[in-house]
Parts: sequence; C-alpha cells; structure tokens
Amino acid sequence: MKVALLGCGVVGKEVRRILDEREDVEIVSILVKDEKEIDDERMTTSFEELLNKDDMDIVVECMGGIEPAFSYVKKAMLHHKHIVTSNKKMLANHYLELSKLAKENQVSLRYEASVGGGIPWIHEMHRVQRIDKIQRFYGIMNGTTNYILTQFEEGESFEKALKNAQMNGFAEQDPTDDIDGYDVRYKCMLSAITSFHIYLEEESIPVYGIRNISDKEMKYANQKNQVIKLMGNGYDEEGNYSIYVIPTLLPKTHPLSNVKNETNGLFMKSTTLSESGYIGKGAGGTPTAHAVVQDVLSIPSLEDDFIQGATNALTHTGRFYIRMQELDNHCAFISETINENTILSKEISLQTLYDYTKGNTNILFVMEVLQ
Amino acid sequence: MKVALLGCGVVGKEVRRILDEREDVEIVSILVKDEKEIDDERMTTSFEELLNKDDMDIVVECMGGIEPAFSYVKKAMLHHKHIVTSNKKMLANHYLELSKLAKENQVSLRYEASVGGGIPWIHEMHRVQRIDKIQRFYGIMNGTTNYILTQFEEGESFEKALKNAQMNGFAEQDPTDDIDGYDVRYKCMLSAITSFHIYLEEESIPVYGIRNISDKEMKYANQKNQVIKLMGNGYDEEGNYSIYVIPTLLPKTHPLSNVKNETNGLFMKSTTLSESGYIGKGAGGTPTAHAVVQDVLSIPSLEDDFIQGATNALTHTGRFYIRMQELDNHCAFISETINENTILSKEISLQTLYDYTKGNTNILFVMEVLQ
Repeated sequence: MKVALLGCGVVGKEVRRILDEREDVEIVSILVKDEKEIDDERMTTSFEELLNKDDMDIVVECMGGIEPAFSYVKKAMLHHKHIVTSNKKMLANHYLELSKLAKENQVSLRYEASVGGGIPWIHEMHRVQRIDKIQRFYGIMNGTTNYILTQFEEGESFEKALKNAQMNGFAEQDPTDDIDGYDVRYKCMLSAITSFHIYLEEESIPVYGIRNISDKEMKYANQKNQVIKLMGNGYDEEGNYSIYVIPTLLPKTHPLSNVKNETNGLFMKSTTLSESGYIGKGAGGTPTAHAVVQDVLSIPSLEDDFIQGATNALTHTGRFYIRMQELDNHCAFISETINENTILSKEISLQTLYDYTKGNTNILFVMEVLQ
Repeated sequence: MKVALLGCGVVGKEVRRILDEREDVEIVSILVKDEKEIDDERMTTSFEELLNKDDMDIVVECMGGIEPAFSYVKKAMLHHKHIVTSNKKMLANHYLELSKLAKENQVSLRYEASVGGGIPWIHEMHRVQRIDKIQRFYGIMNGTTNYILTQFEEGESFEKALKNAQMNGFAEQDPTDDIDGYDVRYKCMLSAITSFHIYLEEESIPVYGIRNISDKEMKYANQKNQVIKLMGNGYDEEGNYSIYVIPTLLPKTHPLSNVKNETNGLFMKSTTLSESGYIGKGAGGTPTAHAVVQDVLSIPSLEDDFIQGATNALTHTGRFYIRMQELDNHCAFISETINENTILSKEISLQTLYDYTKGNTNILFVMEVLQ
C-alpha cells in the first residue's frame, strides 16, 4: 500500500516513524505547511503534487482544524483515495457529506484515532455490533480536563492545574475546546455515528463544561466519597436518543473513578456483553499514531451502515447538581437545597434541564449525580 | 457458513440462540451427551454422525473438560473443519499438538472465549501486535475468586463468600481449579501463547492461590488502603519470560481495584500504546457465547505465528508478603517482620520466591506487593 501523509506534527511524525519501519506500507509523499519544515525528500508544500503521486492509495490526514483539511480530504476522495483521519472536529462537522462521498467513490473513511486516541473504541464499537446492539456509551473522552480534574482533586487550584496541563503539553494555549466540553461533544457525535448510526447537529447536543468548577463542588464530592469526571454520554432508549456532555459525580467504587490524569476510560453497554470498558491513552503522538496505522492496515474495509440525521430527544432522566449565582426559588424541580445557591434536582429529563439552563446566565455550574 | 456445535450447556445454549437469529451462519448439528437432552431435531449423541454432515465448515466446541473434547477436536481438524473453542483447560494442555494439526490441515483454531469471556482480550492481543510488541500482561482473570475476594473485603467470611459464589452459579461444587489458581494458570498459558508466542509447560508456572487467605491479610490491606486481587501475570523482559499467578496487594487508586465481584479486568503493556486495559464480563453464558460467535464470524482467519516451547525464566523481581506457620529466622530475604509469623520480603526474583516456597509446608499464604 502506498500512503500520502497530510501534516507532520506530533501525530504525523509518529505515523511516519511507525510506517517507515514496515515493509507492507510505504509513505510516498508528505504535505507540510512551510518550506522550512522540509527534512525529508518526500516532503512537499503542494497538495496537488502529493495527490498526483503514482499508485498512491491512501491519504492519511493528521493536520487538524477544519480547513484546509476538509477540502483536501474531499478532493482526495474524488480522486478515489481511501481516507484515514484523526481529525474529530472536521469529521464531526462534515460527516454526512464525507460519508456520502466515500460511498460514491467506493473508498474507505476511517477515523479510529479521533475518539479515545490509542483505545480501540471505534473498532470495538464496530466489532461488538457484528452481534450486539449498543444501547449506551459513556466515559472520560478528554485527557486535558481529566488531568485538570485530577490535579484539582489532589489540592491544586483550577488555574494552577490548567497551567500544569499546558506546561505538560496536555492543554492548548486557548483551552476553550477542552474545558468547555466542545472536544467531548465532537467525540460524542462520532461515537453516536458509529454506535447508533445517527448524525446529530452539533448545536443539538447539550454541553456543560468545567470552566466554573469551584472548591464547593470538590467539597461536596469529598463529603459523598465521590469524584467528579467530565463525561460524554449517549443513550439509545428505543430510538429516543440522548447525547450530552456533563461533569458527573461518580462513586469512588466505579472503575472510571480511578482513571486519572490524561488517561481516558470508555464504556459501552450492549445486548449480550452488558457493560464493557476500555482504558488507555486518549491522546499523545504515539498512541494516536498507533490508531491511525491500525486504520491504514485495515484498508480496504467495509463502510458504515447508512447514517441518518436524527433528533436528540433528550428523554433520558437523571438527577443534577446546579449551582446558581442566586438561588432560584421558582425552580420547579428542587429536591434538596445544598447551600445558599446550590440545589440538587429531582429526577428530571435532560430536555427539562436543558430548557432551564440554556442561555440562563444565573446558572454557574451543572453536574449529573449518578445514583 | 455451516456450524456443528459440541455441547449445549450454559455457553452452548447461548451460542445456539445467537446463531439461530442470524442468516449468515447456520447450525446444522448439535452434539449432546444424553438422549434425554434432545429438544431440537438437529441434536445427536453421535459425534460421527455430526462430523459427516454435508458442507459443515466449523466445529464449535463448548463441552469443557479435556476428554472427549480433545479427541473430537483432533478428529474434526483431520476432517478439515475449522475449530472454535472456549475450552481453556484442553487448549492449555494440548496447544502445541492442536496448532500443528491446524497448520497441517489448513484450518483455523480460535479461542477468544477461553480468556476473559466477553472481553476482546485475545482479539486485541492479536490486533495490537500488528504494530506493537507486547511486553507485559496482567489482570483479574477469574470471576469466582474475584467475587469471593470482593465479598471477603466487604466483611463476609471466606467460607460464606465461597458458598455465596456457589449459590450464585459463579463457583463449581469443587472449587479447586478456581481458588487454587489453576484456572488463571491456563489463562496465563493462553495469554503467553498469544502475546509472546511461547508455550510453557503447566508445571513451570508458579501458582499461589487464595485458599488460605485470612483476616490477617485483609487487615494488612486495609491498613495500607489497598485491596487484594488474584492476578495472572506475564512479563517478556528481553526474552526472559516470567509467567505466574499470585494474589496481589494493589493500591485503591489502581483501576483494577474497582473491578469487583465476577467482573474481569485485563491490562497489557506494549511499545506504542503503553498500558491499555479491558474490563467486562469474564464468564457467564451470554458474554462467553458472544466471544465464540465473534470467532465464528472471523473464520477463516490467519493462524498464529509459530509457537515455540520456552523456559519460564522467572527473572522478574518483586516484593512479597509471606505468612508462615512458624517464622523462619533463617529466611535470607526478610525486609520486615509484619507479625509473629509473617514477613515482607526484600526485592527478590520470582525464581528465588518459587525455590523457597515450592513444596514448603511451612508456607501458608503468599502475595505480591505492588509498589
């Protein structure tokens, strides 16, 4: 197999290293942004030149960002190249168009590395479905926020924890995508595509991040002998989908409570296996490159079933901890007042929660409380 | 594909149910022991009759026990049938002969269900090795002992915990294979075959069980804020193999510490992924049947690399808790005396531990202490 590689950053470099050691796959061209990056005779700054290499079968996209990655991937598909990508943001935004193009041009579109890094999450979702129906997925899908929450739990301030994450290369200089939960939202979209065969608009997925987490939440968690994790969730309750991102209070006896720092932990529930869990490195050059290379080795592979647009019904019910700027005495679903401005809700639907919190500037922090 | 099923007990029944719902696989014959079991026109008590069914491609063996399962599987291979089996004891004892027969007759020999039940352990070991070298495996491989240890941890007596396990169908009436660690030893043998491509004689694998665990150990674990798990272990340290079974003192912060009751949890360490973990149902009809059916759907599949006999070098070093009938003052590797008859060893090799404990009736209970 002959591969062209788009991007040679943290992940691309490792993909190159792993593939260059193999005899069954050959990298014939590598796209870089700038002439200054060229340290290999296969490198070029011209996508057209790369696309026209003889016998090249597979384009591996490790650039990140929506553009120009999306345009390049589209063009490569029109030239009948298989696609392997780790780019969750681009995929989540353009999945319907890309999967249609893949079918029309009879090429594969693989994205193992886009959720859970080195964890075989997408692969196992496909494999489990050879027999089972997946009913639920959930887990810790973002290493940056898990690192910050672990440090916070161990006594660091939130600001210091974020700074440590940035210093250790786990967080971007602009950490919005991570701490506000958007990265997990992309991963939930891709997990829902793979497990439930539905495509949801980004905006239809409620997302509660950890930006405003405070000592109050940590104190509450400690009192209950629980921990707080940012979780991505998906339920298929007889065709009613509930996909959402939310900080979650978990008992210390749950296996995810011990998934610490930058490690990810993902669970699914399916008909014959019941709960099955996967723990591993969710990011980093080497594990992500492993997932990319696994995709390359699996090409050509069958495409996904037909993916259809769907409504995020948000019918799933839960109990929620809600901290406000000022207590809302008119709130209809208070089960308990925790302190002067924090409540615990009764069992309510996600839709009720979302209707109440969306755009409500009185709401500072929300988390789900698992029973 | 046409399948013949040997055995219709807890696992076999579920395999029948799952396959009977599919259109891509058909069960054409089912072997049962006794005429009284016949409740399906495909059932027979004659293996010869089953073997001679037209167009039958795959024999699925769910009988358990070494004989007659081994003879039937051998005969089926000589008739060019692919084999899927969940029978760890038979495989562990006869792997070299069976894998040779598989090669000679160009058939597959699949055993996903034999370790970790519904957990994709064997599958992922194969898949990870498309890129990585596996350096270590370890984990909770036996649901019965994990159930007993969980109950014991929660305050039940060992006898009551064992009785509960038997009442709930997690333990056999003769629990020797489980509580003395032999079941985990078979699973370590199969994990070493799959990950390290070596075959070890059963007797060369040290096995320390939980039969003599007492309140003393639980008290010690509690003091240290740790838990005790029966673990199967494999190390490949540059060609020096250390495969062994031992109760292990684990910090409560380790993800395996929260793998409770009959659940299994398995980890491997490999070159690019570092640690990756898998948690799920290790036994039970439905999850085990899932793994069996996954094997059926993967046939024909490539055979393992050449497996060779190897020496269990036991060069790996660790620290061990050793409780004796009477304190051995001549023991050369005491680092600490815990009480009147229990010591904590210095860092010693497994070979040193094994030489000291093997056949030594003064030794009551041994566990490894993870740092």
